[in-house]
Amino acid sequence: MIFTQEDFNILLGQIRLLDEMIMEQAQTRLDNLTKPQGSLGKLESLARRVCGIQQTLVPDTENKKILTFAADHGVAAEGVSSFPSEVTRQMVFNFLRGGAGVNVLARHVGAEVRVIDVGVAGEVSGEGLLCRKVKAGTDNLARGPAMKVDEALAAIGVGVQTAREAIEDGANMLGTGEMGIANTTPSAAMLAVLLEVEPEEITGRGTGIDDAALHHKIFVIKKGIEVNKKQCGSPLEILACLGGLEIAAICGMILECARSRVPVVVDGFISSAAALTAIKMKAEVADYCFFSHMSAEHGHRLFFEKIGQAPLLDLGMRLGEGTGAALAMGIIDAGVKIMNEMATFDEAGVSAG
Amino acid sequence: MIFTQEDFNILLGQIRLLDEMIMEQAQTRLDNLTKPQGSLGKLESLARRVCGIQQTLVPDTENKKILTFAADHGVAAEGVSSFPSEVTRQMVFNFLRGGAGVNVLARHVGAEVRVIDVGVAGEVSGEGLLCRKVKAGTDNLARGPAMKVDEALAAIGVGVQTAREAIEDGANMLGTGEMGIANTTPSAAMLAVLLEVEPEEITGRGTGIDDAALHHKIFVIKKGIEVNKKQCGSPLEILACLGGLEIAAICGMILECARSRVPVVVDGFISSAAALTAIKMKAEVADYCFFSHMSAEHGHRLFFEKIGQAPLLDLGMRLGEGTGAALAMGIIDAGVKIMNEMATFDEAGVSAG
Repeated sequence: MIFTQEDFNILLGQIRLLDEMIMEQAQTRLDNLTKPQGSLGKLESLARRVCGIQQTLVPDTENKKILTFAADHGVAAEGVSSFPSEVTRQMVFNFLRGGAGVNVLARHVGAEVRVIDVGVAGEVSGEGLLCRKVKAGTDNLARGPAMKVDEALAAIGVGVQTAREAIEDGANMLGTGEMGIANTTPSAAMLAVLLEVEPEEITGRGTGIDDAALHHKIFVIKKGIEVNKKQCGSPLEILACLGGLEIAAICGMILECARSRVPVVVDGFISSAAALTAIKMKAEVADYCFFSHMSAEHGHRLFFEKIGQAPLLDLGMRLGEGTGAALAMGIIDAGVKIMNEMATFDEAGVSAG
Repeated sequence: MIFTQEDFNILLGQIRLLDEMIMEQAQTRLDNLTKPQGSLGKLESLARRVCGIQQTLVPDTENKKILTFAADHGVAAEGVSSFPSEVTRQMVFNFLRGGAGVNVLARHVGAEVRVIDVGVAGEVSGEGLLCRKVKAGTDNLARGPAMKVDEALAAIGVGVQTAREAIEDGANMLGTGEMGIANTTPSAAMLAVLLEVEPEEITGRGTGIDDAALHHKIFVIKKGIEVNKKQCGSPLEILACLGGLEIAAICGMILECARSRVPVVVDGFISSAAALTAIKMKAEVADYCFFSHMSAEHGHRLFFEKIGQAPLLDLGMRLGEGTGAALAMGIIDAGVKIMNEMATFDEAGVSAG
């Protein structure tokens, strides 16, 4: 699929604000349910926001799908991960067989997992795999741009298209997910530039590297930022120079959710880099994003401080794949059910306070 | 049902430690699953603890039941709540019809709600209601003991019996819940004594009282502690003098879960007062308790600081009923499924790091 700069501009132009009038009406209903006002906390604000997104007082987030994009990273050659690159491909098979963390947690909350190859280095196929490979892994961001802008646009297009297909198949809430050995490196590099912080502050241990490897990882990220700084102006250029194919696809998926007025649940550290890129491309996108959890990856806390938001969960997780998104989807769905299923004071014959 | 001091002593004597050997074996399995070690954070520690409780490497928390105990409080006469006492009875009907917050959230996580009248002031009946009334509400704790010790023991016995029935009916995870207008007052009074803190530090706005009413509530709690201090030595006596019938029942339910080696999920502020009482009666009980969430009720944060624990969720909720327990049960069940359903590196043919 070709996704051009013009398609990209049209997409951004079609993203709208939330429906404030519906949200006010939703608040009135929430205040009439049989509970002290506001006593269900975030469950209520989640429900209200879903109403504003879906433009209805009977929101629905039952049909959940998680899109897990897999891709490899040229920067893995610098030795920034404790796992070898072939694990990306091996984990794709694990996803397809249903044995990975995201499969278990998605089943638990009643979500479907769709696995998309947007840039795995090796040959990969299997029942259920969506083959949308843009290229066989990015180039090494420490030596030059990870992608050409056209390649980044193509990967964004894969995310847009995959999200549209999921929505056409009935999804009314999507979750982001990814697999890509070394992908905390591009994510930290992107976030350092997007948030204007030092790489030391935002870089963590990923799958579990030691102190020496962390030191080296920060060095690689600094080098990548330096090497690419001249062509790294717009969010799209930052994504191309420092990002990854799966990160670009998640960015596209989030933009499509905002255009289609579908709540999108942002997984962890890597997905946050994609989400912030989408938000920098179009500020209105922020209202469609539900940040799922505080990753144990160092830097995620600073990310939330900088964007002035708090995630739903904080369970010390740092696996990615869409695992945090899955759990948070369960919580958002709970809020939506509160809105739809709780009795009002009148209906229940309960005295208001 | 008669529940004597001797029954109580036997119960405490039958509570054992967790199975450390099983927990070590569980950790080995968790470390072999296809993820970086420890990357599922609290989901892993939850699974490990359930293994230690249930003494198995294939834990099961699928059959979830929430026990919601309802009772009234003599201290409501002091004007400590923004809702009238009859709301306790009205909400029981709401529970039985399935329209309350706990019903919605329990359905969401696949849990059954059992509603028990352990001390509602008015006449109350309906399909599904368990009638185990010990007395028609407590006496006013600001003027003397809320209950005689025998009454507190009887209410503990109701909790023990109801938990046993639920376990005999197949429950392998229980959640606590309560309904009782004014019951943040006895809970704060108990916690002030149990944690040795000032009533100002632990007392909050409950269903939503204003500053003047909060000031008065603190005064009432101080008076209650002063009036009862001579007969308020043991945890059982503190429960009798300052507690409530539903709080005593939850305490009994938690003790029975510990004896029967069933994980018990502690709801919010009121359930925390019951749980701490049970833990003060027998320290080993702590390992069987899963604290579900940080209530927005002022004082709950101090409670967790003092006991040195962190709850699973922090969603700004303060409804009680078992709503927080319901959501946390979903998270614990997710951890158990990770243990049971994820593939190992060997099974999936994935290279370890």
